[in-house]
Amino acid sequence: MTQKQNPVNLRIPGPTPVPPDILEAVGKPMVNHRGRPFAALVERITAHLKSFFITQQEVMVLSCSGTGGLEAAVVNVLSPGDKVLGVSIGSFGNRFGTIAEIYGADVTMLPYEWGQAAQADDVRKALKAEPDIRAVLVTHNETSTGVTNALAQIAEVVREADKLILVDAVSSLGAIPFEMDAWGLDVVVTGSQKGWMVPPGLAFVAMSERGWNAFESARMPRFYFDLGKHRESLTKGQTPFTPAMSVFFGLDVALARMAEEGLESIQTRHRRMGDMTRREIKALGLELFCEDERFASDTVTAVKAPDGIDVNALRNMMEDEHNTVLAGGQAKLSGKIFRIGHLGLVDESDIRLTMDGLAQSLEKLGFTRPSA
Amino acid sequence: MTQKQNPVNLRIPGPTPVPPDILEAVGKPMVNHRGRPFAALVERITAHLKSFFITQQEVMVLSCSGTGGLEAAVVNVLSPGDKVLGVSIGSFGNRFGTIAEIYGADVTMLPYEWGQAAQADDVRKALKAEPDIRAVLVTHNETSTGVTNALAQIAEVVREADKLILVDAVSSLGAIPFEMDAWGLDVVVTGSQKGWMVPPGLAFVAMSERGWNAFESARMPRFYFDLGKHRESLTKGQTPFTPAMSVFFGLDVALARMAEEGLESIQTRHRRMGDMTRREIKALGLELFCEDERFASDTVTAVKAPDGIDVNALRNMMEDEHNTVLAGGQAKLSGKIFRIGHLGLVDESDIRLTMDGLAQSLEKLGFTRPSA
Repeated sequence: MTQKQNPVNLRIPGPTPVPPDILEAVGKPMVNHRGRPFAALVERITAHLKSFFITQQEVMVLSCSGTGGLEAAVVNVLSPGDKVLGVSIGSFGNRFGTIAEIYGADVTMLPYEWGQAAQADDVRKALKAEPDIRAVLVTHNETSTGVTNALAQIAEVVREADKLILVDAVSSLGAIPFEMDAWGLDVVVTGSQKGWMVPPGLAFVAMSERGWNAFESARMPRFYFDLGKHRESLTKGQTPFTPAMSVFFGLDVALARMAEEGLESIQTRHRRMGDMTRREIKALGLELFCEDERFASDTVTAVKAPDGIDVNALRNMMEDEHNTVLAGGQAKLSGKIFRIGHLGLVDESDIRLTMDGLAQSLEKLGFTRPSA
Repeated sequence: MTQKQNPVNLRIPGPTPVPPDILEAVGKPMVNHRGRPFAALVERITAHLKSFFITQQEVMVLSCSGTGGLEAAVVNVLSPGDKVLGVSIGSFGNRFGTIAEIYGADVTMLPYEWGQAAQADDVRKALKAEPDIRAVLVTHNETSTGVTNALAQIAEVVREADKLILVDAVSSLGAIPFEMDAWGLDVVVTGSQKGWMVPPGLAFVAMSERGWNAFESARMPRFYFDLGKHRESLTKGQTPFTPAMSVFFGLDVALARMAEEGLESIQTRHRRMGDMTRREIKALGLELFCEDERFASDTVTAVKAPDGIDVNALRNMMEDEHNTVLAGGQAKLSGKIFRIGHLGLVDESDIRLTMDGLAQSLEKLGFTRPSA
C-alpha cells in the first residue's frame, strides 16, 4: 500500500489518508437513500464490519464523529443515577467519563498518569470497592497519549464482576487485534477516519446481547443516537435519518479493500509500522511518551518534545519543508509532545519520509542528540 | 443550471443532485482538520451561511443529519419540565415535538390535518391558553406534505408573546425566502442535502441573542450537540469534534456557486419551479395534496395518488423506464401520495423530464384523466 497520490504525508492520528479509489467513490453522485441500490450497499458494509468487529451482533453506522458514537454508547444502556467507573489514561478517557456524567450517571474515575496504561488489577479493586457500579468505560487505544490498554484482560475482570463494559475503540478497531464477542465487550465504538481509510463523518457501534437487554430499561434521553431506531432501520438496509452518503460510498470500497488485504495482514502491518516508528524515533535520540513500551500503540506514537525544541516550530517546519503533517499534544500535553499517526493507509515509505523530515528539521532547529 | 451529468433525475426532497464541480470537491484528499487551510475553509463557509440565513449570529456546522440539528436546537435552549408548544403540520413537525418530549419537555402539540398550513391565529390562542409556554417549535417547510408555513407571521405572534421560537428550516433555507434576524427567529436548523446542493452529513444551526441567553440556563443534557462548544471552536476556525470534511469541501464550492447565482435569483428560480410543477401536475389531471395552494411548497410538491394507481408501481416505473426517482408518502401518507423534490440543483428541463415520464407512466398504468 502506498499513499503517493496523497498530496501530503498526513501523519496525524485521523483523519488518515484516503487512497484515490476510495476518494473516487466518496465523490459519487447521490442516489435515493431509501432505494434498493443503497440498501444493498448498507448490507455489504454491515457484513464487512461484523467481520472486523468479530461479532455476531449488528454493527450500526451513525452519521457523526467518534465522539457522537461514544455518546450513543452511554445513552443507550444507562440511566441517570447509574454508577459508572470511568477508566482514563488520557484525553479521550476523560471525555467518555464526562459524557456519562453530563447525562446524569454517577461517575467514579479511575485515572492514570498520562503515558501509562490501565491495569486490570486496579479495575478489579475499583469494582470491589463499589459493588453498585453498573458499567465500566474504557479506551482501548488512547489517541492523546499513544498508549494501548490491555483490553482483553480488563474486559475479563469486568466480565467476572458481571458489569457492562463500554469500549472506545475509535483508534484501534480495524488496525490492531480486537475481538468483540470473544472478549465479551458490551458496547463498541469506532470512527471512519481512523483505521478504515475513509473520511470522517461516520461512527460504527455494536452492542452485545447484554447491551441490548440494558437498552430496554435505559432511561437516558436519546433520539438521534437511539440505537433501537438504527437496528430497526437496518432490517430494511436503511438508517433512521439521512446518512452521510458520500462517506458510505467510500466505506463500501474501503471495506472490500481491507477484506482483500485480510485482517491478519492489516494487523501485522500496523504492528510493523508501530515497531518501525518507535525504533526510528529512538534512533533519532528522541524519547517515547509511553512509559512502558509493552503498551505502546501501534496506531499512534507520542514523542516527548526534546529540551529546547518548540513543538509548533517543529510541526510547521515539517509541514512547510517536508510536506508532512504531525499532530501536537492535546490539553495538558500541548507543547510537551508531538504525535505521529500510523494507522489506516500507511507503509514503510511513509514512516521513512516522516523520519527523514524529522531528522533534518530537528537538526535545523538546533537539536543535538544526547550522547548515549 | 443543469444536472445533465447526474446519472439519474433525482427528484426526491433530499438528498438532492450534486453538480460535478461540487462532487469533485467532495472527493478531495484529507487534510489536517486543525490546520490553517481547513480553518480558512470553515471561515469562508460560515461567512456565506450567515448571508443565506440573513443573520448577524454565527452559523455552526454540525456533522449530523437535519434531525441531529433539530435535537441540537431543543437541548441547547430548554430544560426538562419546560412547557413547549409543538406546531405540527406533518411528519417532521411531529418529530420535532417528540425530540423535545424525549428530553423531558412538557409538550403541547398544535396539530393540523396533513395537507394544511398552520395559522398564526391558532398559535396566538394556544399561547394565551397556556401562558407558561417557554418555546414554540415550528416547521417552516413540511417535507412530508409539501406545505410551507407562513413563518414570518407565526414568528410575529411568538415574538409578541415573548417566547422562544425554534425553527426547522431543513427543506426551506437557501431555497425560499427566509430571514432569521428580521423575523426574530431564535434557533434555526437546516441540512446540507436540501437546498445547498451538497451531500447529506451536515446540519447548520444558528441561535439568536435570546437563544444564547436561554442556553446559559438550559439543563437538558448535551455533549456532541453542545452549541457552546461549537461556538468556541469556531473562533479558531474549527469544530469541537472531527467534522465530516468531505461534505465541508463540497459545501465550500456550493456556497460560492450559490453566492454567484445570488439569493434572489435562487429564490425566484425555486418559485418558478414550484409554479411549473403545480401547473403541470394539474395539467396531467392530478391533484395537489396541499389543501390551499397559497401554502404550496416551492421545494417539494406532494401529489395525491389517483384512484386505482399504485404509488409503488408508479415510482418503480418512473425509476426503471424514465430514470427518475420520486419519493413516496411517509407514515400515514404511505401509498396515498407521491412527492416531487424541486430544490437545490433544478431547472425547467428536470421538471419537463419528470412530467413527460409521469404522463407516459400514468397512461401505461391505465390512468384516465377525469373529464374537466
